[in-house]
Amino acid sequence: MNREQIEACYMRRCFQLAANGLGTVAPNPMVGAVIVCEGKIIGEGYHRIYGEAHAEVNAIASVDNKELLHHSTMYVNLEPCSHFGKTPPCSDLIIEMGIPRVVIANIDPNPKVAGRGVQKMRKAGVDVTTGFLEEEGTLLNRRFFTFQTKHRPYVQLKWAQSADGFLDRPRENNCDVPPVQISSEFTKMLVHKARTEESAIMVGTNTAIKDNPKLTARRWEGNNPVRVVVDRQLRIPAHYNLFDQTIPTLVYTEQKSSHKPNLSFIHINFAENAIQQIMDDLYKRNILSIIVEGGQLLLNAFITAGIWDEARIETAPLWLGDGVKAPQLDGSVVNTEIYDNIQILTINPNSNL
Amino acid sequence: MNREQIEACYMRRCFQLAANGLGTVAPNPMVGAVIVCEGKIIGEGYHRIYGEAHAEVNAIASVDNKELLHHSTMYVNLEPCSHFGKTPPCSDLIIEMGIPRVVIANIDPNPKVAGRGVQKMRKAGVDVTTGFLEEEGTLLNRRFFTFQTKHRPYVQLKWAQSADGFLDRPRENNCDVPPVQISSEFTKMLVHKARTEESAIMVGTNTAIKDNPKLTARRWEGNNPVRVVVDRQLRIPAHYNLFDQTIPTLVYTEQKSSHKPNLSFIHINFAENAIQQIMDDLYKRNILSIIVEGGQLLLNAFITAGIWDEARIETAPLWLGDGVKAPQLDGSVVNTEIYDNIQILTINPNSNL
Repeated sequence: MNREQIEACYMRRCFQLAANGLGTVAPNPMVGAVIVCEGKIIGEGYHRIYGEAHAEVNAIASVDNKELLHHSTMYVNLEPCSHFGKTPPCSDLIIEMGIPRVVIANIDPNPKVAGRGVQKMRKAGVDVTTGFLEEEGTLLNRRFFTFQTKHRPYVQLKWAQSADGFLDRPRENNCDVPPVQISSEFTKMLVHKARTEESAIMVGTNTAIKDNPKLTARRWEGNNPVRVVVDRQLRIPAHYNLFDQTIPTLVYTEQKSSHKPNLSFIHINFAENAIQQIMDDLYKRNILSIIVEGGQLLLNAFITAGIWDEARIETAPLWLGDGVKAPQLDGSVVNTEIYDNIQILTINPNSNL
Repeated sequence: MNREQIEACYMRRCFQLAANGLGTVAPNPMVGAVIVCEGKIIGEGYHRIYGEAHAEVNAIASVDNKELLHHSTMYVNLEPCSHFGKTPPCSDLIIEMGIPRVVIANIDPNPKVAGRGVQKMRKAGVDVTTGFLEEEGTLLNRRFFTFQTKHRPYVQLKWAQSADGFLDRPRENNCDVPPVQISSEFTKMLVHKARTEESAIMVGTNTAIKDNPKLTARRWEGNNPVRVVVDRQLRIPAHYNLFDQTIPTLVYTEQKSSHKPNLSFIHINFAENAIQQIMDDLYKRNILSIIVEGGQLLLNAFITAGIWDEARIETAPLWLGDGVKAPQLDGSVVNTEIYDNIQILTINPNSNL
């Protein structure tokens, strides 16, 4: 292996470490750091939990003999910070510890950093390389970069459909008739796993009324996402699961209703682009990413507004013949998985603006 | 195992033997026969090729010591024939050879037999059991029973679709733009295998013009099916593959055109139910089964007419976003296969009249 290939291994180890923070560091980015001295990794760390130590701090702390730092390179997938946030600036620490070289994948797009970390280190004589495996780093932190550049959460559309393209059998608007079971026990577990990885989860009024969902991550260990529901006329019964106040829940409505613990009613204007208003509000609330789980109307509203970054679609070996049509969208398959004869496609928009 | 379970093993062996005739005995049914003497199989046979010896004849011929037949039971999945067809009546042979007991799954619905074989044997003192594992026998010979009772070929609809339910990208009516590849190399092979198993294969005008298909079984060893195409106005160019006269080909049209070797033009009235007229004609031509491979218009014509017995649908991990919509039909999944991340569903109509 040449030097670049070896350095790529170190950077990919940063990505690997960083990914451990999925679901616990948002709205921060996932960051991993590796310290290499004379061809040996002498320290590693990653940002574990929002508000706690950054990757660089943990990596430096893991080095037994701090003297070695003077002859080391730090690999870190995101630019070390330059500002006092919940922790002191990492670029200061790197300078202070005398690390002579730093290799970075992505510049932090956060306007509080945005190159200032690099600048500060270079000024202090640190040899800084940027943009190394930048694309892979961007993919890893796609939620964060979308949030920072588009000023809205990263939006994952999610639905399960029959092989003939229906979300459900024709059903009246009541929860007495259960929805048709499209997912298997295993793929349901994956759905719950995904819930622990995103900051919020959203359904529309009809889904809330018909299915009375909990939207919690019961089948996987991890954090529950913030629940988001659209309920223009406040038609969802007050005793329904979404209003049980066990988990922070946001209700977007045009009606007036008083806040309760864990239950906020947010007034928006449904005559205008409601999805955009919700996105603006979620951005202000630091919601990094959101899963939109349906139903048909809500999914189509996101698709029509052009506001989605990824779709995860389960197609089951099931034929319904009639029912609620699955949404249509313009995208390309970037990943295929098969479990229990169910095809799960990950789709990216063709026009990624 | 009790006696009935043991006898079921013998009958299922008949089904197994019979199935070897798939693709070579049509329009005859698939038949297998097993001769058992004192708990041992002493002879087996099946109908191998249309026009050649029946299963009973082959089974009896395989018995070395014909004396044992006087103490044997013959298991055969279809009633032995009572008439002189291409071969002499099998019921006569069974009587002549002195086989004292015969167990049958299905009565032959062919009006030339229809119980007469059983009657003849019983009259001669043979102990005949009928209706043993009858449903399994009917499933095995579903093509034959459909042909005999509905007076039309067994119709298998076949298409490949993207996961978002499109048969193809939007394309103009010319064969310069190739169709989007939905099947994999392996599933294409399965499609060709299926062609060797059915008597005919059919496409509509647009598919013939756009894809210029050969409709031959090039990727599997076996017989080519008769090619059937609808071409109301004779718009398919004369130099196209379907008109190459290498394989018997039927063209249903309202135009006049003279027959050529391996190429027949059959006049039908498109103002009335064209599909029914084609079915009537194929019945007269002894076409036991047909695969309808598309396109959209033709598949929908069959579905609308309620003339289909099975649909085999490939759903590939592909997202087209737009294009030619796959047909909708009312049915239930009876089998699921997965190859190369492609889901293949076999669907039976819900209302199997």
